[in-house]
Amino acid sequence: MDYTFAEREQSRLLDELTDFLSIPSISTLPEHASDCRRSAEWLVAHLQGLGCPVATLIETEGHPIVWAESPRVIGAPTLLIYGHYDVQPVDPLDEWISPPFTPTVRGNSLFARGAVDDKGQVYCLLKAYEASLDGDRRPPLNINFIIEGEEEHGGEGIETLLEREPERTKADAVLVADSGYFAPGWPAVCTGLRGLCYAEIHLQTLERDLHSGGYGGVAPNAVETLVRLLSRLKRESGWIRIPKLYTALEEPSKSERKSWKRLPFDEESFLRDEVTGQALTGIKEYSVLERIWALPTLEIHGISGGFTGVGAKTVIPAHASAKVSLRLVPGLTYKKVGRWLARAVEKLTPSWAAVEVRLLHGTNPVQLDTSAPVFDVLSEAFEAVVGRPTVSIRSGGSIPVIPSLGAEGAPVVLTGISLPDDGLHSPNEKIDLQQLWDGIEVFGRFFELFAASGGNAGPDLDPEG
Amino acid sequence: MDYTFAEREQSRLLDELTDFLSIPSISTLPEHASDCRRSAEWLVAHLQGLGCPVATLIETEGHPIVWAESPRVIGAPTLLIYGHYDVQPVDPLDEWISPPFTPTVRGNSLFARGAVDDKGQVYCLLKAYEASLDGDRRPPLNINFIIEGEEEHGGEGIETLLEREPERTKADAVLVADSGYFAPGWPAVCTGLRGLCYAEIHLQTLERDLHSGGYGGVAPNAVETLVRLLSRLKRESGWIRIPKLYTALEEPSKSERKSWKRLPFDEESFLRDEVTGQALTGIKEYSVLERIWALPTLEIHGISGGFTGVGAKTVIPAHASAKVSLRLVPGLTYKKVGRWLARAVEKLTPSWAAVEVRLLHGTNPVQLDTSAPVFDVLSEAFEAVVGRPTVSIRSGGSIPVIPSLGAEGAPVVLTGISLPDDGLHSPNEKIDLQQLWDGIEVFGRFFELFAASGGNAGPDLDPEG
Repeated sequence: MDYTFAEREQSRLLDELTDFLSIPSISTLPEHASDCRRSAEWLVAHLQGLGCPVATLIETEGHPIVWAESPRVIGAPTLLIYGHYDVQPVDPLDEWISPPFTPTVRGNSLFARGAVDDKGQVYCLLKAYEASLDGDRRPPLNINFIIEGEEEHGGEGIETLLEREPERTKADAVLVADSGYFAPGWPAVCTGLRGLCYAEIHLQTLERDLHSGGYGGVAPNAVETLVRLLSRLKRESGWIRIPKLYTALEEPSKSERKSWKRLPFDEESFLRDEVTGQALTGIKEYSVLERIWALPTLEIHGISGGFTGVGAKTVIPAHASAKVSLRLVPGLTYKKVGRWLARAVEKLTPSWAAVEVRLLHGTNPVQLDTSAPVFDVLSEAFEAVVGRPTVSIRSGGSIPVIPSLGAEGAPVVLTGISLPDDGLHSPNEKIDLQQLWDGIEVFGRFFELFAASGGNAGPDLDPEG
Repeated sequence: MDYTFAEREQSRLLDELTDFLSIPSISTLPEHASDCRRSAEWLVAHLQGLGCPVATLIETEGHPIVWAESPRVIGAPTLLIYGHYDVQPVDPLDEWISPPFTPTVRGNSLFARGAVDDKGQVYCLLKAYEASLDGDRRPPLNINFIIEGEEEHGGEGIETLLEREPERTKADAVLVADSGYFAPGWPAVCTGLRGLCYAEIHLQTLERDLHSGGYGGVAPNAVETLVRLLSRLKRESGWIRIPKLYTALEEPSKSERKSWKRLPFDEESFLRDEVTGQALTGIKEYSVLERIWALPTLEIHGISGGFTGVGAKTVIPAHASAKVSLRLVPGLTYKKVGRWLARAVEKLTPSWAAVEVRLLHGTNPVQLDTSAPVFDVLSEAFEAVVGRPTVSIRSGGSIPVIPSLGAEGAPVVLTGISLPDDGLHSPNEKIDLQQLWDGIEVFGRFFELFAASGGNAGPDLDPEG
């Protein structure tokens, strides 16, 4: 590859990435459906521009999936690259220093929604591929790209596609750059992801809102009822009041726990720089990393009910609702947990209130086997550029499609270039530009090393795949 | 007066009232400021049309006040009529069967925001006045009208005016038709109003929203913290956890309690037809009427925080807020209670969260002395039309201006024509048209009887006032 590529082309690359990040591809908001399609079309055009003979949209019931194939090299190993072009919603909008879809450089970072989750990382891989197209030194490797648009919204489209056409995941390895460094200077590979069980709770106590003057003190208030219910779903000590959660979960192994203790984790700077709060909460009997990686959690993502406009309205609300989710660890499935959650909510609801628990979506937790040679190859690439091999971490987040990507037996390499303070899903999401330039070289080198290693081709694999 | 007036003019009156109710005079929403002014101007034009030599707007810092004077009759008693032209917000809008500002007749009722609170009742008094302008039989009475536009929003403008110009309340009696019947066929006079202490609670736990994947289980969640705090402010049994509230309050007298027991109150139909819930809540040691009329209450009017759009966003919210109010009974003042509330909230807030309690407005509870002869006159008017004299009740609601209206010593007569199921402050607010037609006759007769009684003019009163 051309190792000087990123440095030489910085200004053009920044323009291109700015263009890509300007498209507000929020998958979860129906009004942005056409923006999601524009993002996908941007990728197809870009991949065609990079010489992919196949670069196309695959329609789904939701947002389209981008599929592309590099020019085939008979006998060479195949790498499947996964990413997503959709982004999270942007609220609270007023906390953004620059508008979320007007990418802006401040310091050595580029700020925009999707800067690192995951458009910036997808872009990094495209540019690593471009850098590898370096005349005669082009590595003998077949790369397939699959880039979806519903990762932040349940990822149903790609699940359906891969169920119907599992051969798309036939490869010697799957590379997913939707994760990040453990700390600055500490590249990482992810060995496990928490699952997710996301639900809405709708509660009704009256047929209509009432005037608190006339009925305050006797009419059941839906917000009060919901507030009481939610406060009882989880103890202040962090324990979720669904006992089965804790008896069903599989604890991490002793050696994994030990390796986590060796990571450069500083609770104080974690609290100050990342969490930006005054204290860490949660189950004190477990370390912070265990709480994030190895325990289920219950979070309230949003709540609404009654009058929330400017000023004062003295209403007793008839309805209230909340969005909640549980993060799941090995031993738990979203279907089981969804049932337990619904039952727990129903049990906590007074007989005079009507409650409905709507499961919006779920993904199961994932454990990734990192014993295949491809992980050594990646570690070598990082070490060559960053000066340190990868460490093994878990992630508290979920990437719904991971199990399907590995369903045909290819090892799934989950890594990435984000830094802990990049503000994924938050206002002022950013990508550190040095991470981007380094990342282009890291993945370019990875393509070379992986091609040289001959992949892990099993007997079933067909390089035309 | 012309006793056939209402029946004869029904169709015109319905048109006029429809016109008045079509103006969305929501005082609490800044975007409706010009609608409030239009409502006030509508009244001025109407009062001029009824021959008032004085009918004008008095500007305030908020919405204007309507002031009008009937043609003076030297030596005749003076009656001050108070009302308000502003209305409550309309949400939840989707529960309205017909749009709130498209007044619609269904059955024998007219549905619209403000139909009975208080535009419909103001209109009833205007028409009673019009009916009394019946040639030679016109009662010797000086009527002053004061109709404000901020009753639903703290009523600061009229307070300021009456502090500056208290002589406007010099009268032999003040008539306030902003209350209603105790039950169909049971006209009432109100002897007490609860006060109000309305506040917003703002809570922050993080500098920015976080991703629940990365931080779920350790980052303090603002919605969870607020939910826990609110659930602790009031016990499920109904007792507010501010002990001083209960030691400071003055309980109703034995005789008042006894008289409440004689009222035709059916808990079951109250629950079914008015509350529209499955059960009554609150402090079981007190009767339902005592809970509404003689105890303080704490209600959550609205709550918001985190992501509340369509779909799923896995955010840990940094901010959350709620609107709450306490209704106050004799012995409590809003200033004292506001301090107690702020202290209680602060005590319940964990050290790692920032909380702010903003007092939006307050009114003190009111007790009205109903021993003056004007109350007998009103009872006689009701009995003549409806067949039953008035009963004494209290109201759980607040009308901030009442104390100022009585500050010059005039007895304040708080009554009205609303029915318990009229849906004040709720979707599908209505006025029963028979109540309106009856009300026009009742108040027309009241004007006659009050004029004939000569009022209660004291030595200070000047009929030119």
